[in-house]
Amino acid sequence: MSNGCKSCSSASAGGGCSSGHDPKTCGEKPVDEKMAQTLGRIKHKIVVLSGKGGVGKSTVSANIAMALALAGKKVGLLDVDIHGPSIPRLLSLQDAKPHIEPDHMEPVPYSQNLWVMSLGFLIPDKETAVIWRGPMKLGLIKQFVRDVTWGDLDYLITDCPPGTGDEPLAVLQTLGKEAKTVIVTTPQGVAVDDVRRSVTFCNQMGNSILGIVENMSGFVCPNCSAVHDIFNSGGGEALAKEMGVNFLGRIPMDPEVVRSGDEGFALLKVQSESPTAQAFKKIVEPLLALG
Amino acid sequence: MSNGCKSCSSASAGGGCSSGHDPKTCGEKPVDEKMAQTLGRIKHKIVVLSGKGGVGKSTVSANIAMALALAGKKVGLLDVDIHGPSIPRLLSLQDAKPHIEPDHMEPVPYSQNLWVMSLGFLIPDKETAVIWRGPMKLGLIKQFVRDVTWGDLDYLITDCPPGTGDEPLAVLQTLGKEAKTVIVTTPQGVAVDDVRRSVTFCNQMGNSILGIVENMSGFVCPNCSAVHDIFNSGGGEALAKEMGVNFLGRIPMDPEVVRSGDEGFALLKVQSESPTAQAFKKIVEPLLALG
Repeated sequence: MSNGCKSCSSASAGGGCSSGHDPKTCGEKPVDEKMAQTLGRIKHKIVVLSGKGGVGKSTVSANIAMALALAGKKVGLLDVDIHGPSIPRLLSLQDAKPHIEPDHMEPVPYSQNLWVMSLGFLIPDKETAVIWRGPMKLGLIKQFVRDVTWGDLDYLITDCPPGTGDEPLAVLQTLGKEAKTVIVTTPQGVAVDDVRRSVTFCNQMGNSILGIVENMSGFVCPNCSAVHDIFNSGGGEALAKEMGVNFLGRIPMDPEVVRSGDEGFALLKVQSESPTAQAFKKIVEPLLALG
Repeated sequence: MSNGCKSCSSASAGGGCSSGHDPKTCGEKPVDEKMAQTLGRIKHKIVVLSGKGGVGKSTVSANIAMALALAGKKVGLLDVDIHGPSIPRLLSLQDAKPHIEPDHMEPVPYSQNLWVMSLGFLIPDKETAVIWRGPMKLGLIKQFVRDVTWGDLDYLITDCPPGTGDEPLAVLQTLGKEAKTVIVTTPQGVAVDDVRRSVTFCNQMGNSILGIVENMSGFVCPNCSAVHDIFNSGGGEALAKEMGVNFLGRIPMDPEVVRSGDEGFALLKVQSESPTAQAFKKIVEPLLALG
């Protein structure tokens, strides 16, 4: 295990760093030890990812977290999407200010057993375009995952940046091989093309895939009840079959999901009998079965 | 102007490089001069970008390029979306193999006056997850933009990777300040949040914004003609007003757009009278007015 300096995040064999910070005098724990302690208190680490942006990854993350919390589990929801941290808006937490200490951050309580931390809490204002350069981005993700004091959790749901580049790589490397993934796609071929690469990515990384969720699958006209497959249908299930992974289920295209996201109320909480809420509950069953 | 070696992309004051390639003996032009020559033959450089993935950036890029080409302009369509190059599928060019020489690549002809180049042509197979690391990614984007021999063009439409990080930064830096941008959003608040940052990003970079396109704006039930704002409506127009930029128009949510994309036929070509095709034509008017 390599040691490192918390003050500057650089590592050295001796446990100090090139900037001269000395863990013996400042009393800080070496980074990897701290990380191991944090992660050791989390029973199941679930990473929600997608090769393509805009498929509803954040919505799926938030509703999975909510469904697990409603089932009585202790849940953390971590949003590390650097360029589009949507979780604060989805849960009406835009004005939340997490308690931040020099060496750790405390997650924001959402309900009795759901805690939330998002990069969105730390970005100064809604107009600012943070032009994150590569190495800065990686350091930020690692530090961010490491420094949140979750305490004892049954599940940590991580909303991962899209793609198969540095960002999801940093997330999986930081959480380790025991983290399991949920891959989100929309049904149309153009999305499935990108998401197929996510399956290969998880395999390359050695992280097991809990399954694929097909989001925005079919639209039921609220006026005449005709079903329209606007983004086609079945692409996620076909991909799961093709790649030999579980298919967790499909979530219909539902204006209520969009509205609940934009207005920041949790769909599962208020609409627990709707077909969409039922779809989320079904998707969460195999996650609950992890024990 | 700095010189550099094309063979290895490294630069030195003397015009050679650290690998010992000598432009005097190999006859290669210094990189920046080559870039200036390529860009100098392109009248209008248009970059299509979005702070959020999955908003239909590639569909908008392809149809803008198509509409300009149908209006008799010479058009290039460049797809530099590293993690999700969708243009080959959208135009049924998955099997196209561009002609590649050591120092340049020739774009694939799509019609008499539309040429296409995509990173998708160069990625080995559809399953491979290329885990591009930061610096590699930037080098690739710059080289890719530079090395395509477009010849004389009226318009180069560039389909840019999403976000406001290194990738769009590399694209705008490479194309220069005279490149103008079209920003794509979907109407819902969660998307508008991310896309707002794109406006700030373009302002920071000094690239003028032609306007905002609102995609997936309202769904007309093909059965009963009721209109449903699945992703809400008007968010793009409100953002344009708020940020003081032009609103180019809205494109309805149309299963035909998805089908035409998945099956790779150009919507504008086959459905020139549909409301969606008309919406694209209207959006292109200010671009045609550039002269």
